[in-house]
Amino acid sequence: MDTYTILKQLLTQIQNGSLDVEQGLEKLRDFPVMDIGHTRIDMHRSLRNGFPEVVYGEGKTPQQVGEIFQRMEDQASVLATRVSSEMAEYVQTICPEAEYNALGRTLIRVRDEIRPLEGEVAIVTAGTSDLPVAEEARVTCGMLGTRATIVSDVGVAGIHRLLDRLADLRKARVIIVVAGMEGALASVIGGLVSQPIIAVPTSVGYGASLSGFTALMGMLTSCASGVSVVNIDNGFGAACAAWKIINLMQAWG
Amino acid sequence: MDTYTILKQLLTQIQNGSLDVEQGLEKLRDFPVMDIGHTRIDMHRSLRNGFPEVVYGEGKTPQQVGEIFQRMEDQASVLATRVSSEMAEYVQTICPEAEYNALGRTLIRVRDEIRPLEGEVAIVTAGTSDLPVAEEARVTCGMLGTRATIVSDVGVAGIHRLLDRLADLRKARVIIVVAGMEGALASVIGGLVSQPIIAVPTSVGYGASLSGFTALMGMLTSCASGVSVVNIDNGFGAACAAWKIINLMQAWG
Amino acid sequence: MDTYTILKQLLTQIQNGSLDVEQGLEKLRDFPVMDIGHTRIDMHRSLRNGFPEVVYGEGKTPQQVGEIFQRMEDQASVLATRVSSEMAEYVQTICPEAEYNALGRTLIRVRDEIRPLEGEVAIVTAGTSDLPVAEEARVTCGMLGTRATIVSDVGVAGIHRLLDRLADLRKARVIIVVAGMEGALASVIGGLVSQPIIAVPTSVGYGASLSGFTALMGMLTSCASGVSVVNIDNGFGAACAAWKIINLMQAWG
Amino acid sequence: MDTYTILKQLLTQIQNGSLDVEQGLEKLRDFPVMDIGHTRIDMHRSLRNGFPEVVYGEGKTPQQVGEIFQRMEDQASVLATRVSSEMAEYVQTICPEAEYNALGRTLIRVRDEIRPLEGEVAIVTAGTSDLPVAEEARVTCGMLGTRATIVSDVGVAGIHRLLDRLADLRKARVIIVVAGMEGALASVIGGLVSQPIIAVPTSVGYGASLSGFTALMGMLTSCASGVSVVNIDNGFGAACAAWKIINLMQAWG
Amino acid sequence: MDTYTILKQLLTQIQNGSLDVEQGLEKLRDFPVMDIGHTRIDMHRSLRNGFPEVVYGEGKTPQQVGEIFQRMEDQASVLATRVSSEMAEYVQTICPEAEYNALGRTLIRVRDEIRPLEGEVAIVTAGTSDLPVAEEARVTCGMLGTRATIVSDVGVAGIHRLLDRLADLRKARVIIVVAGMEGALASVIGGLVSQPIIAVPTSVGYGASLSGFTALMGMLTSCASGVSVVNIDNGFGAACAAWKIINLMQAWG
Amino acid sequence: MDTYTILKQLLTQIQNGSLDVEQGLEKLRDFPVMDIGHTRIDMHRSLRNGFPEVVYGEGKTPQQVGEIFQRMEDQASVLATRVSSEMAEYVQTICPEAEYNALGRTLIRVRDEIRPLEGEVAIVTAGTSDLPVAEEARVTCGMLGTRATIVSDVGVAGIHRLLDRLADLRKARVIIVVAGMEGALASVIGGLVSQPIIAVPTSVGYGASLSGFTALMGMLTSCASGVSVVNIDNGFGAACAAWKIINLMQAWG
Amino acid sequence: MDTYTILKQLLTQIQNGSLDVEQGLEKLRDFPVMDIGHTRIDMHRSLRNGFPEVVYGEGKTPQQVGEIFQRMEDQASVLATRVSSEMAEYVQTICPEAEYNALGRTLIRVRDEIRPLEGEVAIVTAGTSDLPVAEEARVTCGMLGTRATIVSDVGVAGIHRLLDRLADLRKARVIIVVAGMEGALASVIGGLVSQPIIAVPTSVGYGASLSGFTALMGMLTSCASGVSVVNIDNGFGAACAAWKIINLMQAWG
Amino acid sequence: MDTYTILKQLLTQIQNGSLDVEQGLEKLRDFPVMDIGHTRIDMHRSLRNGFPEVVYGEGKTPQQVGEIFQRMEDQASVLATRVSSEMAEYVQTICPEAEYNALGRTLIRVRDEIRPLEGEVAIVTAGTSDLPVAEEARVTCGMLGTRATIVSDVGVAGIHRLLDRLADLRKARVIIVVAGMEGALASVIGGLVSQPIIAVPTSVGYGASLSGFTALMGMLTSCASGVSVVNIDNGFGAACAAWKIINLMQAWG
Repeated sequence: MDTYTILKQLLTQIQNGSLDVEQGLEKLRDFPVMDIGHTRIDMHRSLRNGFPEVVYGEGKTPQQVGEIFQRMEDQASVLATRVSSEMAEYVQTICPEAEYNALGRTLIRVRDEIRPLEGEVAIVTAGTSDLPVAEEARVTCGMLGTRATIVSDVGVAGIHRLLDRLADLRKARVIIVVAGMEGALASVIGGLVSQPIIAVPTSVGYGASLSGFTALMGMLTSCASGVSVVNIDNGFGAACAAWKIINLMQAWG
Repeated sequence: MDTYTILKQLLTQIQNGSLDVEQGLEKLRDFPVMDIGHTRIDMHRSLRNGFPEVVYGEGKTPQQVGEIFQRMEDQASVLATRVSSEMAEYVQTICPEAEYNALGRTLIRVRDEIRPLEGEVAIVTAGTSDLPVAEEARVTCGMLGTRATIVSDVGVAGIHRLLDRLADLRKARVIIVVAGMEGALASVIGGLVSQPIIAVPTSVGYGASLSGFTALMGMLTSCASGVSVVNIDNGFGAACAAWKIINLMQAWG
Repeated sequence: MDTYTILKQLLTQIQNGSLDVEQGLEKLRDFPVMDIGHTRIDMHRSLRNGFPEVVYGEGKTPQQVGEIFQRMEDQASVLATRVSSEMAEYVQTICPEAEYNALGRTLIRVRDEIRPLEGEVAIVTAGTSDLPVAEEARVTCGMLGTRATIVSDVGVAGIHRLLDRLADLRKARVIIVVAGMEGALASVIGGLVSQPIIAVPTSVGYGASLSGFTALMGMLTSCASGVSVVNIDNGFGAACAAWKIINLMQAWG
Repeated sequence: MDTYTILKQLLTQIQNGSLDVEQGLEKLRDFPVMDIGHTRIDMHRSLRNGFPEVVYGEGKTPQQVGEIFQRMEDQASVLATRVSSEMAEYVQTICPEAEYNALGRTLIRVRDEIRPLEGEVAIVTAGTSDLPVAEEARVTCGMLGTRATIVSDVGVAGIHRLLDRLADLRKARVIIVVAGMEGALASVIGGLVSQPIIAVPTSVGYGASLSGFTALMGMLTSCASGVSVVNIDNGFGAACAAWKIINLMQAWG
Repeated sequence: MDTYTILKQLLTQIQNGSLDVEQGLEKLRDFPVMDIGHTRIDMHRSLRNGFPEVVYGEGKTPQQVGEIFQRMEDQASVLATRVSSEMAEYVQTICPEAEYNALGRTLIRVRDEIRPLEGEVAIVTAGTSDLPVAEEARVTCGMLGTRATIVSDVGVAGIHRLLDRLADLRKARVIIVVAGMEGALASVIGGLVSQPIIAVPTSVGYGASLSGFTALMGMLTSCASGVSVVNIDNGFGAACAAWKIINLMQAWG
Repeated sequence: MDTYTILKQLLTQIQNGSLDVEQGLEKLRDFPVMDIGHTRIDMHRSLRNGFPEVVYGEGKTPQQVGEIFQRMEDQASVLATRVSSEMAEYVQTICPEAEYNALGRTLIRVRDEIRPLEGEVAIVTAGTSDLPVAEEARVTCGMLGTRATIVSDVGVAGIHRLLDRLADLRKARVIIVVAGMEGALASVIGGLVSQPIIAVPTSVGYGASLSGFTALMGMLTSCASGVSVVNIDNGFGAACAAWKIINLMQAWG
Repeated sequence: MDTYTILKQLLTQIQNGSLDVEQGLEKLRDFPVMDIGHTRIDMHRSLRNGFPEVVYGEGKTPQQVGEIFQRMEDQASVLATRVSSEMAEYVQTICPEAEYNALGRTLIRVRDEIRPLEGEVAIVTAGTSDLPVAEEARVTCGMLGTRATIVSDVGVAGIHRLLDRLADLRKARVIIVVAGMEGALASVIGGLVSQPIIAVPTSVGYGASLSGFTALMGMLTSCASGVSVVNIDNGFGAACAAWKIINLMQAWG
Repeated sequence: MDTYTILKQLLTQIQNGSLDVEQGLEKLRDFPVMDIGHTRIDMHRSLRNGFPEVVYGEGKTPQQVGEIFQRMEDQASVLATRVSSEMAEYVQTICPEAEYNALGRTLIRVRDEIRPLEGEVAIVTAGTSDLPVAEEARVTCGMLGTRATIVSDVGVAGIHRLLDRLADLRKARVIIVVAGMEGALASVIGGLVSQPIIAVPTSVGYGASLSGFTALMGMLTSCASGVSVVNIDNGFGAACAAWKIINLMQAWG
């Protein structure tokens, strides 16, 4: 039931006397907020249609995460990211149906079937060390109803490996590029395909890789052709950005 | 004529003897390159359908930019960014139909009518000092056939101004957020709407604004909800990223 | 007329039929925003009671600043900061009563008499090169109705000069400390007096002073005793923070 | 007995011969220092009126902290910050009445009743991960006789949650804003209320959050409206700065 | 068989009808890629002539590294770098002939005899703490068929030790300089000898050594005389760069 | 006359009595120094065989540079780098045969014919803005007797342009890669060819390009395959490093 | 007349009635300050014995500097640093006997003969571009009565030039090392001589020289042998530090 | 036997025929190096007169450090810095007379009585957390024959504590200032005394203290008065620098 309908009901109740002015004021006191909440959280609301509550596991205790899984039991699917194996084991004692993905460090519990969206996301990685971030993106896409395939180990130092996989990339609607080191893969793919590209720098590397900042800065400096970038190691965020595009096509397409 | 057709013709000519093996080899010697060029520049190719040649004006001399405008005269529209008024004046002596946008520092010459795409881009700015970057994005959108409207001066320090304009933002398919200082506007809008958001940090501010890096880092740290980011002051890049999404909807929608 | 009263009127009009439901909805559609605007700009509103419109001059053209002074002529006092002498001269051709402060680089036009607040602010500078920032703070305080005195050149390299002026500092309610180099003055004063201290790092110095970042970081690391810090060279911001404290005392004292 | 009186006595004793010149010189030799000590520690002295000795726990051994608690037993209340649970357990074996706050990582022992000051501090946090820093601030406020309430989890990505709590914020005299990531909450609240705001950046986040520096820089760049900032994670310092303002109102109000 | 020959065969088969156009197209569809793969991996191919597969051990599990050693058993020599002693022990349970170098943290398994190249590499270290990086370079050189000798502990603070070893340095064809701290050794050697110099900054030092960045920047600023630099602690990369030069001399000499 | 001959003469003179012991000691007192000078500057000496004196123009006055050209008139060729057109004009009034290269900002005067070395250097640039640095490298190579060809505008955003030029790159003995932005070109070429690669980051770009540091760091993080790097914009240094390799091949080949 | 004597006089005057208690208090009111000033400025005072008032010219107007020269006319010698030629010319119109040193950018006016101290300072520079900083140090030494000689252009890239000058360095009591780029000269000299070394990093260089920070950090990381460092380009500060050592020897020797 | 005597013997042997020219050349071939070694290590040699071998413990194994202590048993005293308690315990099993200082983390073994130098060093610390670095400096001074006293906990936040100790500071010949946070103590003491000051920044603090860099930069920016600085936490280096000054006074005084 949308805001307009609720407001109309309320005013009609005032008009026909089934609600007096004081009661109306009482309801309206919270209404702007509810309304704001209502209209402003449409993404959130839509997320509730089978979409997950999201928990950032890092810095939380296993107990805290376990509690969230329990509390959400009857309400929504849950996606927890940055979950250590110890945390996962603990949560599974409370919520046995939670599934742990050791590579992506995600823990999920699906409550209702997720409504699939049309259109695929390709997640490309430069090296095998970038796989955990790619996997976090893949799992997140899955929880958002978006099919995603990982095309791995096609870094620029062996450009032919990338060229071999171009046909696969061209089939996707959105491409997530996950790369550490100098992050050059985003530039190269950006010059080869016309789809929207979300680049994720990873903290893979040492010394001059600056824990991912060299990749981050490198990806940002090659944005001219329309590559946009998310935070270092932020596979989850890239998946959200990709989903927003996929979702937009359903809504307006 | 696409690659497949060209190759088929070539092989058929070999088969029917209208081309001998040596001639075929000669043609094929350049073909993989052409082919690679051909298939890899599909975005470029599509850009040629009335889309502009792009010139980054900074660091070039007025003469160099003038020469590009002249050379492109019969071939394509041209969009030059980061053009000083001196440079614009010079180029206009050579190419009088070039139009200068002093705010956005762009210089354009439209050769053929630009085919309009469906779906609007909203460009939101935090303060009036962010306008030049927003204008660069708006002009770029225009050259790519995409309608774009600037919603200006809705920075977070006066949040009510932003809330007043929410309805406008909700009508757009993609939102470009242009903000300097701490770049908080991207986070706030990211929490209010569900569309894809491209954030552009600007170099507005001093001291701790670090010439735009504080905004850049701030925007990157709030990407969880699917905001993605381009380089500092890169209005052009944001417009390209937005256009890629709009264009995707035409192609697949 | 406050929000509660307006809402009550509206509902009563619905109840007694002087407004039908559709009209009520129409009014309510904009109401949350108006309401939000209304309740959220109380600080802004209070600022309008004789308080200045503020213009950040850097990056604006003399024409733009001149236009703001003209537009505000009948409405509010104006305080422009970071104004070059060229800009000031231009604005004064348009608005002759504008007063330029060359040291503080401020340009003001006072429209109504400013209501003075009780309680003084002391602005302490480490060296003579910090004076422009201190002067910007002093002028800003003045425009906000707050008396402010500059105690200059009492840097820590000659600690006795500071000790000589302690009695003066103890008379102030809030102390603004303006210092470049290593910014040690904030720590030293923080150990000597009990009033709230707002520290302003300045970009005075070279090499390891890092354009003010050494002072900024130095001031932040000595905050244990309750020193708080504003941006580099931000005399205006320090004055605002000081005024908020002085103003609080009037409101609640 | 103040400096003036002491000096007058001394000179009178010289004048009337009850002290000879050599004795006078001997007394004067230490006098400037004593005097300086005396007049300079008034804040310290006032702190002793039931106010705590403060111990920074990090980098100290449990034994060292335990010794301080023991030594202060008959003299003053003690507030230890950054105390691990192991350290707390050890100190409690020596000083059983010490109370540990696991969230805020504080350990306190109150010796005399703390004289309450009038006026409340609101401590606002962006996310649940900012709570430890907020709790450190809350406990510190308590030890300084200042009531403080935490308003948690009102980050800018869900702006409606903040708007719901505005009334609570407006009741406070000083607002402490605790936020990591991009630190935008300080800007937003700074635009909504007129009270003094002390912003505390936290080290919550990863990659581009730069261990709290993005929040720190972001908060500093939005100081125009009078927000001032303390060091990263420095809940204690923010509480001291807030207390200085509250205390000022008692002294001068 | 090279690309030209393959293409000629194909076209001849089309010409003489042993392949029809559709079959030719099918083969050509993959051809550019194969071709690209073929011509682009000549370095890789040459590496396979008794040269090692390289594994970067850091961030991998012992199991993953063990698996690579097993998989490569019948195919190529293996060089693993950044291998902890625990990892080495595990891999040796699977592949007992793997040899661990605890100082250089390398693990190697040589399958075929390595064809030795003519010309020696001198690896010079500033201090004993730089030895692990030098040893990684030495082992890598060995796996690439290049003799390398370490000249250790000739840092610039005792310049005479370096001068004593000059004759040894002059015998080498390429010199790798491994130094932490301020990295001055590269400058000094660069002024004394005429051979190509590859400088490797190390993360030895503390505080202002910035984990190797001071050495890195120092080495880069003295490149005027033809010193070139690789990443911090990258002994492997320096050895590769040195080998490329040695190898070039075999190929063209 | 080399050191050995000089020492032998001296000792023979002592032996045959044409020099007494005291005279011999006197001569030997300065000899180690001369000797050190002599043996240590063999590269310098070799440079004198028709090789240039090098002048870094930046920060020098036209007068200073002019004086060096004059002083070297009868002694050696001169290569001045970072020469503005004003400086060049001035020097040419003194030394009319000096040739200015406006693109590379070099000024040269060749005294003797330069002995050509065998083997070519390819200088690859990512974009046209990298040309000045490439030109500095090309001119320097020329002054060192090394042929160098510029392969321009083959940046990774249009990878096919690079693939078209691979054959040219394979003919060179050493490849200098000049690239700004993210510097990815070095990684890509490093994966395609087996020759030694010297990478030169350029300060082309803005914002996240960090005046060339993003390219520098990016190039350093991809060194695993043997790419080595020189300072930002240091075309001269890259040419020296390349010449050292070419020269080595003449000396040992 | 020292503090003790003044105090004794004052107390004696009180004792003998030539001063009453109120008058004594009045005099004492300022006395602790004077006394503090007196005892704390002994270095300052000693500086006045023919030693200069110091003016940092940068950021001051010619008028301001001229005024200081005028005001000091009858009181003390003046040393102004960072003086442009325009500033010097202006000051010389007011104070014709002021002597400008264009290389060191110093302007001095000597009032009384400077008492020479025993012991020489050697100022060593790496390259000719470091000369301005060295010259600032030399002039400052001269104004402090300390002989200083510049040993120029002995950078580590040609180590033999340094070794030739060792005897000269060994004659000095304190050595100031002025070097940009990687700052290695300080390390090398620190290993060759036993005197105190003050290192001055200079902003000479580009790119990775980071405006002097690479030299600064390099000099700091090689401090083990007792090198200490002053700010970038701070020739004046190095001279002060050297003078303090020379002066100490006069005072205690 | 010094260089002169050796050379004279050699030449005399040539002259009198007891050595032929070839033999003389053979001996001379190594001589410059020996000579260089001989004359260049005078500081080292002088250090051997009862002075310690120095070992940097960090990054070494207990076994390595134990071996050095054993090897030096009959040759020299040993000073090891950055020694953990575990390392100390191990070394003491091998070398029982080694004395561990847990606070300063030093391990020493004195072989011969250390010849005391005249003149004291004062080591001043800002807070108790700076004590380990101060203690390292104190122990190092002791091993170099220099008396050193620690004046602790006189940080600038309680300036009166420092003023109370001024007399003690004035007795010292050299002052080492050890301070973390903003490092302001060096500036303050530099303004109060005239002796040479060596400042040691410490890594005490968090957030904006940047692991000691804020203190380092702060100390460098206040060098005008002749403060010089060593690396972060480098108590050993400060003691060496202080000793060089004290030693200079013995040598030349």
